[in-house]
Amino acid sequence: MFVRASTRAAARLQQPRHVLARRTFSSLELIPDEPSRPNVVTGAIPGPKGVALSKEIDTFQDSRTHVIVPDYEQSKGNYLVDADGNVLLDVFAQISSIAIGYNVPSLLELGRTDEFIKAALNRPALGSFPPAQWAEWIKTGLLTVAPKGLDQLVTTLCGSSANETAFKAAFMAYRAKERGAGADFSKEDMESCMLNQSPGSPQLSVLSFKSGFHGRLFGSLSATRSKAIHKVDIPAFDWPCAPFPELKYPLEEHVAENEAEEKRCLEEFERILIDNKRTRPVAAVIIEPILSEGGDKHASPAFFRSLRLKAREHGAFFIVDEVQTGVGATGTFWAHEKWGLKEGEEPDFVTFSKKMQAAGIYHKKETRPNAPYRNYNTWMGDPMRALQARKMIQLIKEHDLVSHTAATGALLASKLNTLFASPAASGKILNFRGEGSGTFLSWDLETPAKRDEFVAKMRKAGVQIGGCGERTVRLRPMLTFGESHVGVLCETMEKVLGGM
Amino acid sequence: MFVRASTRAAARLQQPRHVLARRTFSSLELIPDEPSRPNVVTGAIPGPKGVALSKEIDTFQDSRTHVIVPDYEQSKGNYLVDADGNVLLDVFAQISSIAIGYNVPSLLELGRTDEFIKAALNRPALGSFPPAQWAEWIKTGLLTVAPKGLDQLVTTLCGSSANETAFKAAFMAYRAKERGAGADFSKEDMESCMLNQSPGSPQLSVLSFKSGFHGRLFGSLSATRSKAIHKVDIPAFDWPCAPFPELKYPLEEHVAENEAEEKRCLEEFERILIDNKRTRPVAAVIIEPILSEGGDKHASPAFFRSLRLKAREHGAFFIVDEVQTGVGATGTFWAHEKWGLKEGEEPDFVTFSKKMQAAGIYHKKETRPNAPYRNYNTWMGDPMRALQARKMIQLIKEHDLVSHTAATGALLASKLNTLFASPAASGKILNFRGEGSGTFLSWDLETPAKRDEFVAKMRKAGVQIGGCGERTVRLRPMLTFGESHVGVLCETMEKVLGGM
Repeated sequence: MFVRASTRAAARLQQPRHVLARRTFSSLELIPDEPSRPNVVTGAIPGPKGVALSKEIDTFQDSRTHVIVPDYEQSKGNYLVDADGNVLLDVFAQISSIAIGYNVPSLLELGRTDEFIKAALNRPALGSFPPAQWAEWIKTGLLTVAPKGLDQLVTTLCGSSANETAFKAAFMAYRAKERGAGADFSKEDMESCMLNQSPGSPQLSVLSFKSGFHGRLFGSLSATRSKAIHKVDIPAFDWPCAPFPELKYPLEEHVAENEAEEKRCLEEFERILIDNKRTRPVAAVIIEPILSEGGDKHASPAFFRSLRLKAREHGAFFIVDEVQTGVGATGTFWAHEKWGLKEGEEPDFVTFSKKMQAAGIYHKKETRPNAPYRNYNTWMGDPMRALQARKMIQLIKEHDLVSHTAATGALLASKLNTLFASPAASGKILNFRGEGSGTFLSWDLETPAKRDEFVAKMRKAGVQIGGCGERTVRLRPMLTFGESHVGVLCETMEKVLGGM
Repeated sequence: MFVRASTRAAARLQQPRHVLARRTFSSLELIPDEPSRPNVVTGAIPGPKGVALSKEIDTFQDSRTHVIVPDYEQSKGNYLVDADGNVLLDVFAQISSIAIGYNVPSLLELGRTDEFIKAALNRPALGSFPPAQWAEWIKTGLLTVAPKGLDQLVTTLCGSSANETAFKAAFMAYRAKERGAGADFSKEDMESCMLNQSPGSPQLSVLSFKSGFHGRLFGSLSATRSKAIHKVDIPAFDWPCAPFPELKYPLEEHVAENEAEEKRCLEEFERILIDNKRTRPVAAVIIEPILSEGGDKHASPAFFRSLRLKAREHGAFFIVDEVQTGVGATGTFWAHEKWGLKEGEEPDFVTFSKKMQAAGIYHKKETRPNAPYRNYNTWMGDPMRALQARKMIQLIKEHDLVSHTAATGALLASKLNTLFASPAASGKILNFRGEGSGTFLSWDLETPAKRDEFVAKMRKAGVQIGGCGERTVRLRPMLTFGESHVGVLCETMEKVLGGM
């Protein structure tokens, strides 16, 4: 099966691209027993069992954020089954963190191997005692999808720690550059850092963008600019925030305005870089290719390329946060591939997590710390998640799921354009966006309340869909999401919008 | 098997304590094929295969921190096997993060269950879509070992994020208290926090102690005060650091001096709490029961109890970081159980990770945030690690491994006292400490170089042992470490010390 699929994938790679696109992948290839449609069996969702289970959890852990209580053992592929037996098409995928599907047989098969079980139950302190197979696991897995120009990898456990690992590497490299080649830390550096004082704890900063989201730990939260409720009451570093373009849609009707908006943001970005040199120099710039939690905000490839070049011009490292955009959902493996960066212009760091299940940073050898134990911790990632990532990467390649997702996204966008222009949706949907970014599509409703109503009604009609920003709905289906799921999604949306 | 063991454990619980202590647990009960002693087969460790594998890893990831490259598939119980086939008694246990042993059959059995495999490969966004079995898994697992007085649990992925989750909860609760019951955030709070400015991003602090270690992310690293190389070049919060007693050993010969030292530290601690009220009020105090990375520094139960009470008196939450000390190795399940805190004096937060494999915080219901999504993230822990923790907790209880470790620690301390007084060790070992703290024993050598030489020679003689602080050797064996391992360790130490 493996050999056949590999051969097929190899054969496809030799075909011209338009032929590739015509081959239709069906999720049934990977998940033969995936349901064909939703099935809602309780009047409300969650149903009585879900409500009771949430209440039980609430005795020891806050349950106010619960949406439903799933039965993961029964869920299959793109369909999430809840504790009451409701079968929902899941286009939110655990906040965009499921790549292939629930209970995919070939992943469960991996889970049953001795290699996986021993990796799971003998978790090493990877930085000091790496498993004998570590190089093999990484070279045949995570490194095969390394972004162009980045051949170094540090694994971590989640997206927040991936971003903070990149921050730390950037600060170290920035200070090393300031000190000059080969120069050692000064006595003053070593003493002052123990008191959290400058110069050892330097007054440097990470620049991020309005509506950006980079995590919830203290460094990543200082860079996060999504919502006040994420940040309020938590001490933060005095780091700068640059504006991110507020594009108008449809894009083709606002070309000049959007260009002017991007120009304004670029100028302001550069001004902040320059101004901060006197106060807290910017050691690193971090940005998502699509600002996801903040409301699916897009900008042009030219805008991102300019940011990258301006950051370099002013001596700041450039970190692309692909925690949510990475691993194929935008129709390329990494979303920043669409920026058209030339050789030598690649980002300094690309961070990942979520759909990869493994997390970490790709970077260049020049940003390795100058001494060991500087960007180090006990686990430094989890080999078992690296094995899972390797298997998923193999499946993605064998089944050409990135091209599939690009094609599915195009089909879905076309159907949504038709639906949103129909009487059922008339005036209810604003700012449809993401065309050309695979299934990473989104739109606004008129108000936050309308958005919440839409999401709740979709769930009741059998589709688990997610929000972001103030009044946005974001699609985050898996990579096996295809034509049949598009049909279910669009039908359900039509029905729900008609009733709103 | 399960039933028999449970029955036996139940029977033991009805016996008086001195009878319990007399029953000898052998690691062979849990790991029948554990080697009986080390076997070193290469001239140097790592051997040629290990060196080659490190070099291969170094093409993509820093290998300067590698100690050996283990073959985890061949390792068993307390014995770590490396890629060259060297069999080492492991008393470092992946920086204190293996509780029971390598490839313990009953843990591998758990790994082969459908429940575990599906939990591993269908990782949920736990805060919003918790598994239907979550309450059951936690109530029969992690909650059964909750520290006294703390019945709430938030899971995370590692120790650093556990500590930062506690910091965030403490800051939120502190500000809620300042605002008064039921008061909402002000408009100014909500706006200023988006700019990382006060009052929304408050000028509050976490107080930690000299030589304390609490992690490597930006908040936890600001509280960490172990070594400059961990902190230099990384921006830090201007948070205060209090002195930690530098006790003199042997304790019985320095009673008055040590009491004076603890008194001095307590007074300075209180002075900092008071002084900071005018600048950056201390919202939380964090401390390890034994300052581990910083060099295995101990203080008296009375000292810790005074800290706890003084913190409360001055309005600061009290966080006990049991990431390294938790889960039995000190002879009680939690090290802070030895402090004799009375009802109502319990810590506000206890954090854990490492040997638990699952990570997180135990806390009280009063420190739940006032609104949802405030201390939230995508994964919020990993159910598969909670299942692993549950199984390990069951094994620890069934085999009474905490009492076993207390007894083993007493035996080992007695043997080490004899060894250290012998001609072989004469003058080479200083400050032997940790008696009464299970197997959490440590000592200094004369210089950092001597310590490193000792550790390297021990490895060559078949024992993987770890350092900490400047010149300390720390023992961190697993909970199945027993009389036979004590014999191997002491013999090897005698030989190595004799040759130094």
